[in-house]
Amino acid sequence: MSPAPGEPATDPASDAVVKAMARALALGESVRGTTSPNPPVGAVILDAASRPVGEGATQPPGGPHAEVMALRQAGDRARGGTAVVTLEPCAHHGRTPPCADALVNAGIAAVRYAVADPHPLGAGGGEVLRASGVDVEAGLLGDRVAGGPLRAWLHVTRTGRPHVTWKYAASLDGRVAAADRTSRWISGPQSRAEVHAMRAAADAVVVGTGTVRADDPWLTVRTPEGELASRQPLRVVVGTGEIGDSARVLDSAAPTLRARTRDPRQVLGLLSERDVVDVLLEGGPTLAGAFVRAGVVDRIVAYVAPILLGQGPAALGPSGVSTITEAHQWRVEGVTMTGRDVRISAVPATGQGGG
Amino acid sequence: MSPAPGEPATDPASDAVVKAMARALALGESVRGTTSPNPPVGAVILDAASRPVGEGATQPPGGPHAEVMALRQAGDRARGGTAVVTLEPCAHHGRTPPCADALVNAGIAAVRYAVADPHPLGAGGGEVLRASGVDVEAGLLGDRVAGGPLRAWLHVTRTGRPHVTWKYAASLDGRVAAADRTSRWISGPQSRAEVHAMRAAADAVVVGTGTVRADDPWLTVRTPEGELASRQPLRVVVGTGEIGDSARVLDSAAPTLRARTRDPRQVLGLLSERDVVDVLLEGGPTLAGAFVRAGVVDRIVAYVAPILLGQGPAALGPSGVSTITEAHQWRVEGVTMTGRDVRISAVPATGQGGG
Ligand SMILES: NC(=O)c1ccc[n+]([C@@H]2O[C@H](COP(=O)([O-])OP(=O)(O)OC[C@H]3O[C@@H](n4cnc5c(N)ncnc54)[C@H](OP(=O)(O)O)[C@@H]3O)[C@@H](O)[C@H]2O)c1
Ligand SMILES: NC(=O)c1ccc[n+]([C@@H]2O[C@H](COP(=O)([O-])OP(=O)(O)OC[C@H]3O[C@@H](n4cnc5c(N)ncnc54)[C@H](OP(=O)(O)O)[C@@H]3O)[C@@H](O)[C@H]2O)c1
Repeated sequence: MSPAPGEPATDPASDAVVKAMARALALGESVRGTTSPNPPVGAVILDAASRPVGEGATQPPGGPHAEVMALRQAGDRARGGTAVVTLEPCAHHGRTPPCADALVNAGIAAVRYAVADPHPLGAGGGEVLRASGVDVEAGLLGDRVAGGPLRAWLHVTRTGRPHVTWKYAASLDGRVAAADRTSRWISGPQSRAEVHAMRAAADAVVVGTGTVRADDPWLTVRTPEGELASRQPLRVVVGTGEIGDSARVLDSAAPTLRARTRDPRQVLGLLSERDVVDVLLEGGPTLAGAFVRAGVVDRIVAYVAPILLGQGPAALGPSGVSTITEAHQWRVEGVTMTGRDVRISAVPATGQGGG
Repeated sequence: MSPAPGEPATDPASDAVVKAMARALALGESVRGTTSPNPPVGAVILDAASRPVGEGATQPPGGPHAEVMALRQAGDRARGGTAVVTLEPCAHHGRTPPCADALVNAGIAAVRYAVADPHPLGAGGGEVLRASGVDVEAGLLGDRVAGGPLRAWLHVTRTGRPHVTWKYAASLDGRVAAADRTSRWISGPQSRAEVHAMRAAADAVVVGTGTVRADDPWLTVRTPEGELASRQPLRVVVGTGEIGDSARVLDSAAPTLRARTRDPRQVLGLLSERDVVDVLLEGGPTLAGAFVRAGVVDRIVAYVAPILLGQGPAALGPSGVSTITEAHQWRVEGVTMTGRDVRISAVPATGQGGG
């Protein structure tokens, strides 16, 4: 059907580019947790007639970048086509050759990327491409990419420390366990599945010695069949005290770091050394309080279950606030129902979570 | 434009009835807090051509019911018309003559009501009308009316005790005050305005002696200009201890009941004697815990502010739960953003809040 007079014609090419970027975003998201310290990028190649002919995502460190994966799949059909990428293609010679060169060599006529590369070494891919006569545009779905798959990587690139998401499950009255310290399960099955997916996409999961002593958690990622996933995030236990060598978190199912300190910034320093970009802080309240006080929590994901307890530990322990005007200020980023629970995600009210 | 073949024609009459019921709902809502022990009902009269010609809402006790108010405004134009009412018209002789008779006498041809009257004395209006040849249908917007303006009245009619909404404002970590007991203001201006409106529509606002001692609240309703509203809910202070005779809640701005007991059911009994239907429990945590434990909280409205405190009293004090399996189970009824805060409303998971 042709559009009625006066109505703008939809541009099939730009439509294809938007769809390709949404697909690239999903591809990037799908490899989150496997690419650190590199960014989880997604790429789609459209041929000269705007048909998708190749797609790819960043491979584990040392492996090809997303653009190269997608170009390989596209082959000759890339010539005269468009590359749609979540991040500005790199222009530097690292462990792999620059993607900007690969795109030019493949005869790509146009590049669309969502987010500019803030990395001192990586930036400049857009310029290199333009200088080679490629039509370059930036910004499509930029917010969704920057707040999604590239969030943690952008954060570490800007601040030099890993991105920390503090996740907890609490009752409506803000408690993370009952009076007798039982807490299985505060949140419902859908929330627990979501948390499991968050853990699978993280580089490290962090708990305090108190949680290990109280719950003896395993902190591993399992497949839907209940087997251990092939990739496991680093398990981190923070605190100066002993947890006993029979703690499940110390078994061989996944690597574990015993961080014998009470300083959150020191913990993050140890994690940086291990190429960790994306940290999931799983509690408990004492350790979370220390991270909040140190200003190194960048996002809160709270699962609020519609139950009342009236006693038991609160979600957050002391964090340096003695009167209401000193309260840590946050901004709600999203609220959704997750099964029977309310999921609230929040970010520091003043942009960055600290530094 | 006539509808395409196969598509149902929109019925202008039924369209007018739906609009009239939405208006009747708003009229009922607008008099909430002024009609107890009678229900806050709204009514709209449509003439024979389905045009609105009269509207009304329940007047304070002893005054006319909504239908009579609307009929007065409609006058002769009611003849052959439709009465749209949120509650089944009454058929009994109370302080005012039965509305069913008034509708018949005015020549009303059809009656649409949202909710059937569960009241032993009131029920039967639908039958009386049908027996007089009036075309009667029930149920339009029934859920919205029953969960809205008629919620508390339906509850008291079914259970014999007032409806209790426990409202609180907490930090994301579930605290209602900071370590030094300061709490102004945990929630933002929009939440506070909403709470003020809830108070204005309640028959009674209830706090414990602890809150009076900590905050010395006034618990009055003010106009937008800051003056005392002409109608004030009953202020209720629960507890056996002294609060001192200089407490603001004891001034002459509004009536105050000192309930010198710790038994929530006894408090509700005292309120029933005073024709209270709709109770707003404003805390604090100790009193709320006692009400939850007694099973007499029918709705929770929580304003969760995006701040972290890490210390200070939790939203709910002891409520008889010692282990996680004993937790009180609720169901989230609605989640919305209210300014910067998250507003969560919940009802007991098992339907009624107690009995
Ligand atoms: N529902 C949930 O989402 C959730 C999640 C986790 C835990 N929990 C519950 O939380 C409870 C455990 O709470 P918790 O607070 O004891 O656990 P925690 O925060 O995991 O561990 C506390 C311990 O961490 C160490 N630590 C590290 N840095 C610290 C610092 N800066 N300041 C103080 N201590 C520091 C201290 O141990 P050292 O003496 O060893 O230094 C401290 O005793 C359990 O009941 C568990 O079920 C609930
Ligand atoms: N953010 C909010 O929404 C909000 C709302 C209200 C209060 N607050 C805060 O809450 C704090 C006050 O908390 P609170 O718990 O002390 O206040 P509360 O619940 O208002 O009062 C507690 C008192 O109520 C009496 N009481 C009545 N029935 C009882 C029962 N069944 N069991 C035990 N006691 C019963 C007791 O006093 P008697 O000895 O006199 O019997 C008890 O000490 C303040 O910091 C205030 O700012 C916050």
